[in-house]
Amino acid sequence: MNEWPMADGPLFELMEKKLYTGVICDTLDELGFRNQAMNERLRPLDPNTVVAGRAKTILAADVYHVHDNPYDVEIRALDSIKPGEVAVVCTNRSRNNGIWGELLSTAAKMRGGRGAIVDGLIRDTKKILELGFPVFCTGFKPVDSRGRGIVIDYDCPVEVGDILVRPGDVIFADRDGVAVIPADVVQETVRRALNKVERENHTRKELLEGKLLRDVYEKYGVL
Amino acid sequence: MNEWPMADGPLFELMEKKLYTGVICDTLDELGFRNQAMNERLRPLDPNTVVAGRAKTILAADVYHVHDNPYDVEIRALDSIKPGEVAVVCTNRSRNNGIWGELLSTAAKMRGGRGAIVDGLIRDTKKILELGFPVFCTGFKPVDSRGRGIVIDYDCPVEVGDILVRPGDVIFADRDGVAVIPADVVQETVRRALNKVERENHTRKELLEGKLLRDVYEKYGVL
Amino acid sequence: MNEWPMADGPLFELMEKKLYTGVICDTLDELGFRNQAMNERLRPLDPNTVVAGRAKTILAADVYHVHDNPYDVEIRALDSIKPGEVAVVCTNRSRNNGIWGELLSTAAKMRGGRGAIVDGLIRDTKKILELGFPVFCTGFKPVDSRGRGIVIDYDCPVEVGDILVRPGDVIFADRDGVAVIPADVVQETVRRALNKVERENHTRKELLEGKLLRDVYEKYGVL
Amino acid sequence: MNEWPMADGPLFELMEKKLYTGVICDTLDELGFRNQAMNERLRPLDPNTVVAGRAKTILAADVYHVHDNPYDVEIRALDSIKPGEVAVVCTNRSRNNGIWGELLSTAAKMRGGRGAIVDGLIRDTKKILELGFPVFCTGFKPVDSRGRGIVIDYDCPVEVGDILVRPGDVIFADRDGVAVIPADVVQETVRRALNKVERENHTRKELLEGKLLRDVYEKYGVL
Amino acid sequence: MNEWPMADGPLFELMEKKLYTGVICDTLDELGFRNQAMNERLRPLDPNTVVAGRAKTILAADVYHVHDNPYDVEIRALDSIKPGEVAVVCTNRSRNNGIWGELLSTAAKMRGGRGAIVDGLIRDTKKILELGFPVFCTGFKPVDSRGRGIVIDYDCPVEVGDILVRPGDVIFADRDGVAVIPADVVQETVRRALNKVERENHTRKELLEGKLLRDVYEKYGVL
Amino acid sequence: MNEWPMADGPLFELMEKKLYTGVICDTLDELGFRNQAMNERLRPLDPNTVVAGRAKTILAADVYHVHDNPYDVEIRALDSIKPGEVAVVCTNRSRNNGIWGELLSTAAKMRGGRGAIVDGLIRDTKKILELGFPVFCTGFKPVDSRGRGIVIDYDCPVEVGDILVRPGDVIFADRDGVAVIPADVVQETVRRALNKVERENHTRKELLEGKLLRDVYEKYGVL
Repeated sequence: MNEWPMADGPLFELMEKKLYTGVICDTLDELGFRNQAMNERLRPLDPNTVVAGRAKTILAADVYHVHDNPYDVEIRALDSIKPGEVAVVCTNRSRNNGIWGELLSTAAKMRGGRGAIVDGLIRDTKKILELGFPVFCTGFKPVDSRGRGIVIDYDCPVEVGDILVRPGDVIFADRDGVAVIPADVVQETVRRALNKVERENHTRKELLEGKLLRDVYEKYGVL
Repeated sequence: MNEWPMADGPLFELMEKKLYTGVICDTLDELGFRNQAMNERLRPLDPNTVVAGRAKTILAADVYHVHDNPYDVEIRALDSIKPGEVAVVCTNRSRNNGIWGELLSTAAKMRGGRGAIVDGLIRDTKKILELGFPVFCTGFKPVDSRGRGIVIDYDCPVEVGDILVRPGDVIFADRDGVAVIPADVVQETVRRALNKVERENHTRKELLEGKLLRDVYEKYGVL
Repeated sequence: MNEWPMADGPLFELMEKKLYTGVICDTLDELGFRNQAMNERLRPLDPNTVVAGRAKTILAADVYHVHDNPYDVEIRALDSIKPGEVAVVCTNRSRNNGIWGELLSTAAKMRGGRGAIVDGLIRDTKKILELGFPVFCTGFKPVDSRGRGIVIDYDCPVEVGDILVRPGDVIFADRDGVAVIPADVVQETVRRALNKVERENHTRKELLEGKLLRDVYEKYGVL
Repeated sequence: MNEWPMADGPLFELMEKKLYTGVICDTLDELGFRNQAMNERLRPLDPNTVVAGRAKTILAADVYHVHDNPYDVEIRALDSIKPGEVAVVCTNRSRNNGIWGELLSTAAKMRGGRGAIVDGLIRDTKKILELGFPVFCTGFKPVDSRGRGIVIDYDCPVEVGDILVRPGDVIFADRDGVAVIPADVVQETVRRALNKVERENHTRKELLEGKLLRDVYEKYGVL
Repeated sequence: MNEWPMADGPLFELMEKKLYTGVICDTLDELGFRNQAMNERLRPLDPNTVVAGRAKTILAADVYHVHDNPYDVEIRALDSIKPGEVAVVCTNRSRNNGIWGELLSTAAKMRGGRGAIVDGLIRDTKKILELGFPVFCTGFKPVDSRGRGIVIDYDCPVEVGDILVRPGDVIFADRDGVAVIPADVVQETVRRALNKVERENHTRKELLEGKLLRDVYEKYGVL
Repeated sequence: MNEWPMADGPLFELMEKKLYTGVICDTLDELGFRNQAMNERLRPLDPNTVVAGRAKTILAADVYHVHDNPYDVEIRALDSIKPGEVAVVCTNRSRNNGIWGELLSTAAKMRGGRGAIVDGLIRDTKKILELGFPVFCTGFKPVDSRGRGIVIDYDCPVEVGDILVRPGDVIFADRDGVAVIPADVVQETVRRALNKVERENHTRKELLEGKLLRDVYEKYGVL
């Protein structure tokens, strides 16, 4: 039996174990938050990935020469990740470098990070898979960010997958996509979503028994 | 030994077992139908999928609020699927909702549907994979169609993957893509394609023996 | 112990066994070649593919009817592939045919070809996977090139994945992308990259011990 | 001297005479409405166009054969346009027909319509220019909508230029783009914008006198 | 009074004087040719351009070094233009050079060419405007084709603006777009279109008198 | 008679008066600089614009909230523009704000700036046209940069229109596009281009006399 409000750690584990993005988005719809799913260009490196966590936002931009202390803000951002957080990286549509890779995955993981959502390209994917660190991205590029991109801010609002993410929002992602749960409604969303999962089993069961969609819809009022 | 014309059920099983989209498209080329392969954005959810069936066309459009009886046409379309059919869904380039998901897959399967070709985004992919229902789509989005998209017609011509599909056309799809066989030439196409498969084995065999492409081409006249 | 310069055969095997595109690109950066990674639309058919080889360039263009001797230049190109080469195919952004397939893969392999990098669509992917021939491409299309595309030149400079490739350049590709090593710096690049792999192990190890990124970066000066 | 609230007719004429989209968007920013400018693909047919009016929303979708009564909803939509309204047409990203043309422009104008914002292609542009009816669109296509697109609803929320427009919102458009003013803040927005126009003259004047941007910004606090 | 069939010269002059692409496309629709309008990316250099002529097809492809006799086929193509022809240039989606410019415009004009439809980029636009030679294109690029693109064939089928154009087809283009009239139905299309123009005047006139769209549609059966 | 090397002021005036981008790009080709023309998405606000000047580079990035001192770097960049310079603004593919407008145009002009090349959206276009300040951009958006984009650096290498621009390079732009002349070859390029303009007159003249392209090409060796 869950005690509400739940602490972040057990909450995220429960979410990863019991929920899926579809039911999270349906619940957010009910609560009036209808634009919380990222653009479909964000895809999991491993299709079986399920990840939940607090958004640790990071803002990057492309540059065209090597700046002084190019990694300064990036290092501060990574070293300040706290347990239960998911790095959420806005690259401003970068296509010219693999801003996230094995080292950042390792550093994030060792701080307690639960995953990374990168609206851009990544590299070292074989080693990230071996590390078992959940990463979503828009593609792959084997070149380093040095002289190509820098982190310009963190712990600030960012737009990732065309959705505004604020520090403290909760990310939930699986093979269907990436959902952003606004900080204020996290507990409510999860509680409702857990209930909804139960009810969906009836619909599925009756359809599998061969009932018409018409009859099942009229009985349960949902599709 | 096959009796021609074959009935749909055995025909589709034979096609799924013996044929592949390449040989179907080559045969359609021979018959003068040169524009029958859908755009490459249509991809199988499971890369090992092979599916053949009659096109059950469905036409949807995005909307921006919840309409009265939003599922009315959709339910009629799904409940009228007949054994041997493949749902072929035109979403008019929708990118804002997962119009196809587990429930529709289950409903379609229980009516005898053999698969779905969705020129749009889908959700519940984990459960669709568990269900073993063949689906091709252009990407994934965990949000529901409610208030975002409606089915406006079915059993009508639709454009899916940039190819016009008419009710009664036969769909054949595998990891190389999705082909549309016009209703009038289905039997002819399959019969020729089965023959062609035999002949390609010679070309392959001689190449594997190390012969030059020049010599094999001059001998068999095909590449 | 490697003797430098190494011959192509052993060199490419060593590269495939020990290196990855990230370290190749970092080394090319050091040598001042900062734009050698192809566009991310090029993806491996099998994600576990690693391939190294000399670029055998091929240039194709779309056509809209069947030309006389449509396969003439293509056959000459394929039959002249030499051991250690990788076919590098520019299709001029073709989206209307599967210019590469099982037969070309077989022909290339039997000549000693190590793989193919196709900036366009391919077909017969099931059989190519069974053949175990490494292919990178931008998507899939089951239709033949006959009457749709022709090879117009080979052993000439081509632009593939937005990168200029000259005959004699070395291709190195894995799941992170495709790198082009200019002919003049191949030996130097590989030698340096092998060294760099060793050094990266320290960074990784210390991060895995829980050290802060700040401390590791200050110690090793790299990220 | 304007009496507030102003009636629609005089209000829209005042807006067209005194305001421009930049100052409207800056005012909406101040009021907390930061996402009210349509995508830049919407362009005026005549670059000198300035138009203000109530949104008369129309929702269309592509179809692929001639439906029964294909123009039924479209005719009802057009004939119900009221003086002061601007047709705001969502085509669901249609690229296959010129859904708006001379006849609809004429019909809209004769009902008192002030213009049309079409997120799609239009035709008869020479005659529309001669008619002097303000139209914004995303391009041109000389083919009729018959058998290609139908109006499926009107006076409903629509997404046009990626912005949600509700019936009753006010459209203001000029050569810089198209802004959507939510119904509730129309009077407030216009009043503030008129004031802001006055103040911007000081900044401009001092810059034209050669003052540094630094000094002007420190004096007026705006850029 | 026109004598049918008309010769090309007077026919094209009549078309340019009396017709517009909308009425041509409506007529082609009636005749069952529903996909004859090029993609909207093709735009006139001068928006007031109206041009009609026989398609002189030219097929080009990008290359990445200077070939021997790079202009050989191009020169033959240009020098064989006959009076009444319109150059229709397929560049296979080239974005890297201005394949058409002042010299080709001048050469084409002096042979009697009536215009050029280029599915690619052009240059020397100021001088082309001064020359008064009608050109449609998809954009502008000031770099020469030398070492970047070559003409590989002409007087062959080409795909331009996504429409197949065969030698002998007639092109008709104005500010609404570019229509392709199949060779077999040119006379029929023009004759019908001329009639249709007359009838449209009634619809327009009654709408301008303030009649409802409903009434005008019921009376004339067209929109 | 020009004295070489020429000072910037007279040089840029001469270029604007006598040259066009085509001849500049042909000259750069001769000198081995073959990739100096920006992407065709950069278009002049006024098609008759011709502008030459030293690149004053500015680097911006999108942000998603109002930063402290949001205009600080931007003001420093603008106030440090020197006579003869052209602002060259990299926005990192921004589509969400009009980063350049009337005030920056005015400020730049009063410092002696000759124009602006903005790889992004601009606003206040009516007033910029009235001011007569040459601006190239990729489109229009009426919303302010405040809280949407910031300048993060200037006088640094930037990539604009997909071309690397370094401080000190010379920009030359007209209705055909935007060319970047590397700092080291500016005088040489202009001198050669002026000569080339003379020679092109012969080719044009003979074509206008009706000579075949073949004959003119054989005589002058250029197209």
